[in-house]
Amino acid sequence: MRGLFVGRFQPFHLGHLALVRQVLTESPERRLLVAIGSAEESFTWANPFTAGERFEMIARALEEARLRGVDVVPVADISRHALWVRYLEGLLPPFDRVYSHNPLTLMLFARAGYATTSPPLVERERFEGVRIRERLAHGQGISDLVPSAVGRYLEELGAPERLRLLRPHAPSPEPVP
Amino acid sequence: MRGLFVGRFQPFHLGHLALVRQVLTESPERRLLVAIGSAEESFTWANPFTAGERFEMIARALEEARLRGVDVVPVADISRHALWVRYLEGLLPPFDRVYSHNPLTLMLFARAGYATTSPPLVERERFEGVRIRERLAHGQGISDLVPSAVGRYLEELGAPERLRLLRPHAPSPEPVP
Amino acid sequence: MRGLFVGRFQPFHLGHLALVRQVLTESPERRLLVAIGSAEESFTWANPFTAGERFEMIARALEEARLRGVDVVPVADISRHALWVRYLEGLLPPFDRVYSHNPLTLMLFARAGYATTSPPLVERERFEGVRIRERLAHGQGISDLVPSAVGRYLEELGAPERLRLLRPHAPSPEPVP
Amino acid sequence: MRGLFVGRFQPFHLGHLALVRQVLTESPERRLLVAIGSAEESFTWANPFTAGERFEMIARALEEARLRGVDVVPVADISRHALWVRYLEGLLPPFDRVYSHNPLTLMLFARAGYATTSPPLVERERFEGVRIRERLAHGQGISDLVPSAVGRYLEELGAPERLRLLRPHAPSPEPVP
Amino acid sequence: MRGLFVGRFQPFHLGHLALVRQVLTESPERRLLVAIGSAEESFTWANPFTAGERFEMIARALEEARLRGVDVVPVADISRHALWVRYLEGLLPPFDRVYSHNPLTLMLFARAGYATTSPPLVERERFEGVRIRERLAHGQGISDLVPSAVGRYLEELGAPERLRLLRPHAPSPEPVP
Amino acid sequence: MRGLFVGRFQPFHLGHLALVRQVLTESPERRLLVAIGSAEESFTWANPFTAGERFEMIARALEEARLRGVDVVPVADISRHALWVRYLEGLLPPFDRVYSHNPLTLMLFARAGYATTSPPLVERERFEGVRIRERLAHGQGISDLVPSAVGRYLEELGAPERLRLLRPHAPSPEPVP
Repeated sequence: MRGLFVGRFQPFHLGHLALVRQVLTESPERRLLVAIGSAEESFTWANPFTAGERFEMIARALEEARLRGVDVVPVADISRHALWVRYLEGLLPPFDRVYSHNPLTLMLFARAGYATTSPPLVERERFEGVRIRERLAHGQGISDLVPSAVGRYLEELGAPERLRLLRPHAPSPEPVP
Repeated sequence: MRGLFVGRFQPFHLGHLALVRQVLTESPERRLLVAIGSAEESFTWANPFTAGERFEMIARALEEARLRGVDVVPVADISRHALWVRYLEGLLPPFDRVYSHNPLTLMLFARAGYATTSPPLVERERFEGVRIRERLAHGQGISDLVPSAVGRYLEELGAPERLRLLRPHAPSPEPVP
Repeated sequence: MRGLFVGRFQPFHLGHLALVRQVLTESPERRLLVAIGSAEESFTWANPFTAGERFEMIARALEEARLRGVDVVPVADISRHALWVRYLEGLLPPFDRVYSHNPLTLMLFARAGYATTSPPLVERERFEGVRIRERLAHGQGISDLVPSAVGRYLEELGAPERLRLLRPHAPSPEPVP
Repeated sequence: MRGLFVGRFQPFHLGHLALVRQVLTESPERRLLVAIGSAEESFTWANPFTAGERFEMIARALEEARLRGVDVVPVADISRHALWVRYLEGLLPPFDRVYSHNPLTLMLFARAGYATTSPPLVERERFEGVRIRERLAHGQGISDLVPSAVGRYLEELGAPERLRLLRPHAPSPEPVP
Repeated sequence: MRGLFVGRFQPFHLGHLALVRQVLTESPERRLLVAIGSAEESFTWANPFTAGERFEMIARALEEARLRGVDVVPVADISRHALWVRYLEGLLPPFDRVYSHNPLTLMLFARAGYATTSPPLVERERFEGVRIRERLAHGQGISDLVPSAVGRYLEELGAPERLRLLRPHAPSPEPVP
Repeated sequence: MRGLFVGRFQPFHLGHLALVRQVLTESPERRLLVAIGSAEESFTWANPFTAGERFEMIARALEEARLRGVDVVPVADISRHALWVRYLEGLLPPFDRVYSHNPLTLMLFARAGYATTSPPLVERERFEGVRIRERLAHGQGISDLVPSAVGRYLEELGAPERLRLLRPHAPSPEPVP
């Protein structure tokens, strides 16, 4: 059977990697589905990286960490929360446990009868995606927050420049058309 | 002929019920269409209840109040305001008067040639949906604000817990994926 | 509790009415949800009438037949069959039995755990919607196939002319843009 | 005031050009909106050319014919026929007469209160888009059917090869995923 | 070849007109595509005017200024930023330079290989759309900010009343359903 | 770098497996992305299985064949062919060669500058998805056409019964609502 880990991974950071490692270590016979949420979003402050870029981040981080048994799946949003769990059931192979730090995700899956786990997250606040994006936008280092393979890839992508431009209150007289 | 009452009913409260009673009492020969707007929305702070849950609230409240002659119709949003009236015309049987407290709703229907009525609402602020949701999220009683059948149904649904979780600034490190 | 009867009702005919009467007669304490499928469709050969026009047909037929206890609900299609039952659950108040003559509808609800009923339909072929539309398009009478209130309403709508124009192989050099 | 000419223009042919010339000649003070329908479609047999390619065809043909006073506007489909006229009203500046050869287009605009004109089309069958596409797919000349500027542009686009591939019954074991 | 000028034009103001004039004056042999973004939006504070109303504003302003060589094209949003440039390429005839004041627009087109220009804008802050809307909503004159033909058209439309109603914090107890 | 193999896999058959094996054998250092097209479709004759079911088929077949280095990704359709390649680029990590038997897929990727390969398919007609579905619907064995792990899984799913019901011309008086 498989577990399911849902996130947006903007970007994929060490907190995410620790969760993946923990799940795979505890149950070596199981596989883990990593669902990249909001896959259709990109080039916004909340979702600066495309699903493909996030897929590549995760692939490089897993290879660097020599973790096997993970399937990465980009999943576009469905606008209807009440259908979200059923929508994922239709897109993914069977899974029986859901890992997340998001209370709404956990509630929706628990209502649908799934076992859910919210692993303790050390230094939770440091590992919020928005804080990492803020640091990138300000040109600050993030090597203590992301796997080194992800750090190098973010440089390849020119992430700091992209985030500086997408950050709210940048000198943008009008929203993009 | 029919009247049309448009709202989101998150939740259906005593102000809504008073409007329905008033319309049916003034014109006993007429029917009233109650359109549940944003029907596709649920499990968000602005729209915590599914259209089906809202339909059930209204059905129980009308039965408790022994009001007949009402048709309840969930209506998904259309993103284009300029088409909204025409969209409702295509979904609903003919109607000739629109009841609402929302200025934009009234303007859009008036521009399309409909008679509109914005009934006086006693204690308007008390009966805002968002205030009732705030009270639910804080575990405060709302028996003075909703029909008693709705109050019981909200308990069945575990509404306070749901709203506590959906309320902004709840400890949610990331928006739901 | 409620039953659910799903159809497209293009148009609402005597076979549909017989099913409604049978359900309401067998269980007078129950209500029946009549879901108008493909509500967003209109002015095509398969779906010539708007959801609002179909709602009005049904309302007039029920009034003529003095049948009470029915809730009519237009429901737009969702393109994903695997989600269809869950989508209806989100839009409608609770129901526990589904009535239909369509094998796929019955299979999808049965897979989701619902009791389903496919009532015997006398003269099934006569009561296919497409045959009634063919007869309308050819200017033939349909008074033996639809409730008389529906027949009068179809005349009000100019149904024969509309169907003649929508019928495939009509002299239309290009599909509508 | 403006007239509106709606078509899909797959491709823009001499019948279309004759209609444009006739409208502009009869009322030199008026402008003509040419709406390219199904603008989101491309690389299918029914709609092989993108909206941009069709825009370019029309622009070149009008320049070649020295016709002025035309605004070309790509318009994506809206799936709801009952809203189609209102949708166009929201996208386009005011117009008061609609030109088309399509009976459904004419009916929908007439129901919305517009004056409509279906200009006599000489040799109607020769100027059906599907026949021109058939000829292109078979490598036959079409210089008697399209403005010469369009003919040259179709060559630039490699139209015969594209159409040969898109034509139904081409050796395609599966529909495109 | 053509240039492309992308904006939302809520409303079309003197800063927009100056840019159009400058482009056409510098390269008289070129045409300019003016893409009206967010074409599906209307009757909101950010996008109060329909695409058709904005088209009419631009047409009147260009006629008043005796500027020729402009094609106005309403373009509905696509929710995926990563596809936005490709989406415009599919809708529009070929263009080779993009004009905008929006940094994200400029970045997306530059990444796709286009030449981009961000013309210096005198008194940038005065010409923000939101400031003009604020002034309209407060009943203040805007004759120093928009072409006079646009000013007259805004009066025809009853723009001040519309904007007063759409302005956030207007007495609206609930968002429109 | 990665290759990309696009299909709908209704169901995943021995022809598909042969292609995967060939690609992985020729370039052992490369990975292969297997994109499940039309991921949102299910319970239709053309697309009877959900994306999740197809994912499971492929996972079991690859495990049975001891093939590694494959990433399976469900991909919902985008209705615009002209954007399809760019849409896949946004969802998937980088790839540099595309494998398919579909001429349109090959053309669209070739136009976007990708290397494409259409591997020779022995007994092409036997391995058409529609023929396998026909055989399943008629209760005929397909053990010579699909990997044995897929054959067992199709039995678990009750595939013959599902296909019998979905097959066109089954006794269905109306399309599903």
